Amino acid sequence: MSGLGPGAEFDRIRAIAGALGGTAGPLDDDCALVQAGGTTLALSTDTSVERVHFRRDWLTPEEIGWRATAAALSDLAAEGASVIGVLSALSVPRDVPASDTTAIMKGVGDCVASCGGVVLGGDLTGGAQLSLTITVVGEVARPVRRSGASPGDRLWVTGTLGGARAALEALLTGGQPLAHLRERFARPVPRIQAGALFASLGATAMLDLSDGLAGDARHIAAASGVRVMVDLSHVPKAQGIPGGPLPPAVFAAQGGEDYELLATLPAGVDPRPAFEGIGLMVTDVGEVAAGEGAVFRLEGREVSLAGYDHFA
Amino acid sequence: MSGLGPGAEFDRIRAIAGALGGTAGPLDDDCALVQAGGTTLALSTDTSVERVHFRRDWLTPEEIGWRATAAALSDLAAEGASVIGVLSALSVPRDVPASDTTAIMKGVGDCVASCGGVVLGGDLTGGAQLSLTITVVGEVARPVRRSGASPGDRLWVTGTLGGARAALEALLTGGQPLAHLRERFARPVPRIQAGALFASLGATAMLDLSDGLAGDARHIAAASGVRVMVDLSHVPKAQGIPGGPLPPAVFAAQGGEDYELLATLPAGVDPRPAFEGIGLMVTDVGEVAAGEGAVFRLEGREVSLAGYDHFA
Repeated sequence: MSGLGPGAEFDRIRAIAGALGGTAGPLDDDCALVQAGGTTLALSTDTSVERVHFRRDWLTPEEIGWRATAAALSDLAAEGASVIGVLSALSVPRDVPASDTTAIMKGVGDCVASCGGVVLGGDLTGGAQLSLTITVVGEVARPVRRSGASPGDRLWVTGTLGGARAALEALLTGGQPLAHLRERFARPVPRIQAGALFASLGATAMLDLSDGLAGDARHIAAASGVRVMVDLSHVPKAQGIPGGPLPPAVFAAQGGEDYELLATLPAGVDPRPAFEGIGLMVTDVGEVAAGEGAVFRLEGREVSLAGYDHFA
Repeated sequence: MSGLGPGAEFDRIRAIAGALGGTAGPLDDDCALVQAGGTTLALSTDTSVERVHFRRDWLTPEEIGWRATAAALSDLAAEGASVIGVLSALSVPRDVPASDTTAIMKGVGDCVASCGGVVLGGDLTGGAQLSLTITVVGEVARPVRRSGASPGDRLWVTGTLGGARAALEALLTGGQPLAHLRERFARPVPRIQAGALFASLGATAMLDLSDGLAGDARHIAAASGVRVMVDLSHVPKAQGIPGGPLPPAVFAAQGGEDYELLATLPAGVDPRPAFEGIGLMVTDVGEVAAGEGAVFRLEGREVSLAGYDHFA
């Protein structure tokens, strides 16, 4: 269980892994890897719960389905895997009309189809809260784990950060997020292509940014036994994220649920030409050094950043 | 979607399949089948929700984990598959202590280990209701679908029926179920060995009894385009199920969540010697005929039986 950073949520997972002992595989990476026939499958499961991960009045039913599916597919992206399909387990309260149930599943289907997969199967049950568990199934020739970063590697991030957080904060305070930021929250794009590209470029470690760069950088550090050094002035910020008391770079680095990829590449490998080919920004945000933990610097000064802990 | 019988729950699934169109595989069998690397994988997902499928005061945390896992593994059994492992997505309310979360996952791990698999991965999140989604991953050389039954086949069922229902009814009325019936509800045994045995004997169709024989027999009839004729006087009844207003055979046939297997075999194939080898009862309960639907006979008279509809 070396692949998890500090935090109460991860303490719970460590306790579970201890109790499971030999009845569990390694539980500390984005995907489980299974050798089957002559191939390697990548599998992951992810739950989105009403009033924990979203509210029904924030999203259309199709967006609820899309968003939950994108969040789960993001784990395949972080492994460098291609998508076979998803299984969807949906719990719906009795006040949800059948047409909304269908629309949620349409969002699931559209999202997985956008990545070349299909809905393989599912379960439908009642429940007091709307809850959607998506299990993703992919195939991967060269899995990229969290544990392969070495001192000297550079740290790269796709897209821009902070957009989903900005939208979420607007929604939480009853405001109306800017349309393009709302889109980042409601319809994140699974970075499947980008993950495969990083893998083909020789990425040494990779994960998807669900807890925010500030939290997730620590997972790579813990799994790889290295220190991850982030230069906050280089962090790509979503346009229109709020100023306020925090420097925008700090806001962006602490924003969760952007579902961009964070990857380490050997120094000298420049992914930008390849990423131009898929029309996606990729930015060098720091380096890997000997040591442990994650260090964040802004204008030459070290800044202390906490990640997002779902059980705090 | 020919593999589903009538009912409001199955109408919802049919509406979803219609909306998904080409973005979904066939959703009407126990497992999704995926060809990968020269082998066939069987996959299924199943959710257990507090106050829908169980109550926390009825089961220990370990039993909650075991039961949810057994219910999901039962779909692999119904395919004739062997077990690779499971992914577990657990939502826990804040009042559940971390030790209970660990104990639930211990139950998951013990159940999957009893079938030769491991916990491959998981997700842990908050939620107002305790909810556990188990996704099962198996491998199957000769999948047995619901759709292959032919007129003339005989209908076989493993174990005894009605035990889980008897325990559930006692719990629902504040009573104390008999210990061996409580065990049927709290710790069902996934019939993985039995499923593989049926497959090796040439089973033409198979499913697991989650909705009760009365409901599930209709799924085989619908999927195979046949009439399934059940002789209720032959239905193996769990010892100690209540008398009351219903004949015990009717009580047993309408009892859900026994997770026994129902399989059709060509006439002349007697599975009893092989099942003796694994110490499990197997009983001939009827036959397959031309026509449609399921017909239940008791002492020569036709009896009208409804299945259990989770959305009724």
